Amino acid sequence: MEIPAQDAAHMARAVALAGHGHGTTSPNPVVGCVVLDAGGQVAGEGFHAYAGGPHAEVVALAQAGERARGGTAYVTLEPCDHTGRTGPCSLALLAAGVARVVIAVPDPNLRAAGGLARLRAHGVSVTSGVLGAEAERVNEEWLTYARLGRSHVTWKFAATLDGRSAAEDGTSQWITSAAARADVHRMRAAADAIVAGIGTVLADDPHLTARPGSASAPVPDGPASLSSAVGGTPFGAVASPADVAGGAEGRLGAGRAAPTSQARPGGGAAGGRRPLRVVVDTRGRTPQDARVLDDAAPTLVAVAEDAGTGLKADLLRLPRHGRGLDLEALLEELAAREVVSVFLEGGPTLAGEFLRRGLVDRVVAYLAPALLGSGRAALGAAGVGTIGEMHRLTFDEISPIGPDVRLIARPATQPGREQ
Amino acid sequence: MEIPAQDAAHMARAVALAGHGHGTTSPNPVVGCVVLDAGGQVAGEGFHAYAGGPHAEVVALAQAGERARGGTAYVTLEPCDHTGRTGPCSLALLAAGVARVVIAVPDPNLRAAGGLARLRAHGVSVTSGVLGAEAERVNEEWLTYARLGRSHVTWKFAATLDGRSAAEDGTSQWITSAAARADVHRMRAAADAIVAGIGTVLADDPHLTARPGSASAPVPDGPASLSSAVGGTPFGAVASPADVAGGAEGRLGAGRAAPTSQARPGGGAAGGRRPLRVVVDTRGRTPQDARVLDDAAPTLVAVAEDAGTGLKADLLRLPRHGRGLDLEALLEELAAREVVSVFLEGGPTLAGEFLRRGLVDRVVAYLAPALLGSGRAALGAAGVGTIGEMHRLTFDEISPIGPDVRLIARPATQPGREQ
Repeated sequence: MEIPAQDAAHMARAVALAGHGHGTTSPNPVVGCVVLDAGGQVAGEGFHAYAGGPHAEVVALAQAGERARGGTAYVTLEPCDHTGRTGPCSLALLAAGVARVVIAVPDPNLRAAGGLARLRAHGVSVTSGVLGAEAERVNEEWLTYARLGRSHVTWKFAATLDGRSAAEDGTSQWITSAAARADVHRMRAAADAIVAGIGTVLADDPHLTARPGSASAPVPDGPASLSSAVGGTPFGAVASPADVAGGAEGRLGAGRAAPTSQARPGGGAAGGRRPLRVVVDTRGRTPQDARVLDDAAPTLVAVAEDAGTGLKADLLRLPRHGRGLDLEALLEELAAREVVSVFLEGGPTLAGEFLRRGLVDRVVAYLAPALLGSGRAALGAAGVGTIGEMHRLTFDEISPIGPDVRLIARPATQPGREQ
Repeated sequence: MEIPAQDAAHMARAVALAGHGHGTTSPNPVVGCVVLDAGGQVAGEGFHAYAGGPHAEVVALAQAGERARGGTAYVTLEPCDHTGRTGPCSLALLAAGVARVVIAVPDPNLRAAGGLARLRAHGVSVTSGVLGAEAERVNEEWLTYARLGRSHVTWKFAATLDGRSAAEDGTSQWITSAAARADVHRMRAAADAIVAGIGTVLADDPHLTARPGSASAPVPDGPASLSSAVGGTPFGAVASPADVAGGAEGRLGAGRAAPTSQARPGGGAAGGRRPLRVVVDTRGRTPQDARVLDDAAPTLVAVAEDAGTGLKADLLRLPRHGRGLDLEALLEELAAREVVSVFLEGGPTLAGEFLRRGLVDRVVAYLAPALLGSGRAALGAAGVGTIGEMHRLTFDEISPIGPDVRLIARPATQPGREQ
């Protein structure tokens, strides 16, 4: 499709705006909107900042006011056509008298879809698919959740350059730097759930909470800082520090800061979220005094249907699969609890199982400039016997984090993504 | 030391010029020189392009001609004071009437040192240590060789993101891309010797030759292209695509291309070099028909003093060390043969031994966006039992190479480098 340069530029700005909602809109998508007046001048901008808050279109239309009449609206996701916590955006666009609507990605959510059809029926000119890939990317967690009916999985690991996460004697503190650990806490804070295996719980007794300010690196407040946790430097574009969002802003010369009117009630987003902690614990062996069972955040212990455990905790009983649990069932159960995004941390065995079953949607690797040569591998058996079965990814971003490097990659063919 | 901005800028340009000699000056250092006239305008530039060719100072002075009188010369390495294949540069500077000489790094080579003392004795104003770190970096291979009396070692490995270089069944073609393999060939071509262990020779029967044009990526001709093989994006400066050399050029607004007058006789540098192939083969088990023994390049097989081998090859007999060879003795023997730089490739066992003995000066890792979870680790036992013994490095450069990423790191405390 040939896309007029103006359409692409305005949609790029809308994608950038959408990114500001990262980590705070769950279980809603992130959405950005730019409204032009009839003369083609930007009249309003908005993004969806938090669940229950106004949708992007509503924010942008409010800012545009009467100038929206006869104008164009760019929206990263098809405007909703249903009445949820807020009214349908399709009606808001009609009421504002917008003459043309340009969208990037159709809404896969059957309950909310139909916005474009309604707009067309009322004589609004509609264009779909503009900067679809970029809008898919900025919203990948929610789109995976909406299309596949399971939580989106980001697998994070920290390792040496030779892929080891502990020395021969099991010691591992600290391979990566305080800066990298602070970055992990920011990533955790943007997720709906943090998942670890029983092996990690028994070996390390982790807390699995998001403490963005706990690792000695300062964390800015508000939605914009969370968006930076999933931003970074796109692969192959080392000359530009811009992520998809930042790059779009750069082209349009706009600043990064979110409009202050978009701040979430109750202050900084990071402070208000307590991601669900999930332990994958087939036989129910989590110690009753494990840190993960304290009251710092809610915790779910996933055990086998037939596990005879006396554990006092919120248990999620799941079918077995091989020697472990049915991980797809786990992700579907989490999705049913409105867990859009899962942050999978440790250990190598559980990560290998997720990977083997095609349930890793994104990989975040923190590699330290260090070599071990022996000790625990970051990744355990993942179902690969020969090189043709290797799990192929593509790099999205490469970013220095303190003295370490963070690499973000995704499967070369991604399950939750329309190709 | 407070360095005047002008001094730093001109020395940065000299460092950039020095970099153009990468891979073609061995066993000489790379050196760059900028000559200003008495009014402070650039009158001449030069670099040492190949052993036996004119030194950097001589090239720059020739370009400056009479304008050098009363001017200043910036040289990355102390001007030589001996007559080797060319006359002493100290005398050339005096003859040209230069009033001031600024250098970055003193010459550690006792035979050639003394240039500064002679200049001072003749009333030339001398400043030393300007941009010393940058000039050390651009010349690190030769400085290691000159200071430690052994070859400089770059260990290269290619692996998945989880640090594996072959699948469970031993298959490994291809983990990294054609672009990464072409980059490896360029790196090999810039080294004086390519070293591999007998395990790799028996398993893969590698050729160990530098075929810069063989892996489907175009390779530009001449010294500038070789310098790019060891250039790249400096760590922590992702916003700038400049390497040390490129960065300096950027500041000065000069182009990257080497002056055409500097081209090596006989055409492109890469085509003329045939790095020595070295097999570390304690018991002399290299098959007589191994590819590494063909006539594509000279080959040295390092065996134990007492190895009873019938191998018909150029044997280097070395003392044993543990179950292998004395690798320090190997590097000293290679240095005695004017091997300044060694490119160490495979396998994990030999790399682990080099690392354990503190003989790795630089690490070049090509990481593919892929995961294996099992199979051969890129690095074998390296003498680390607990996390405090981990080999700590610092990242120098991070560069996308096709779909892969190349990370260049060095030991946090480098043996061949003055701190």
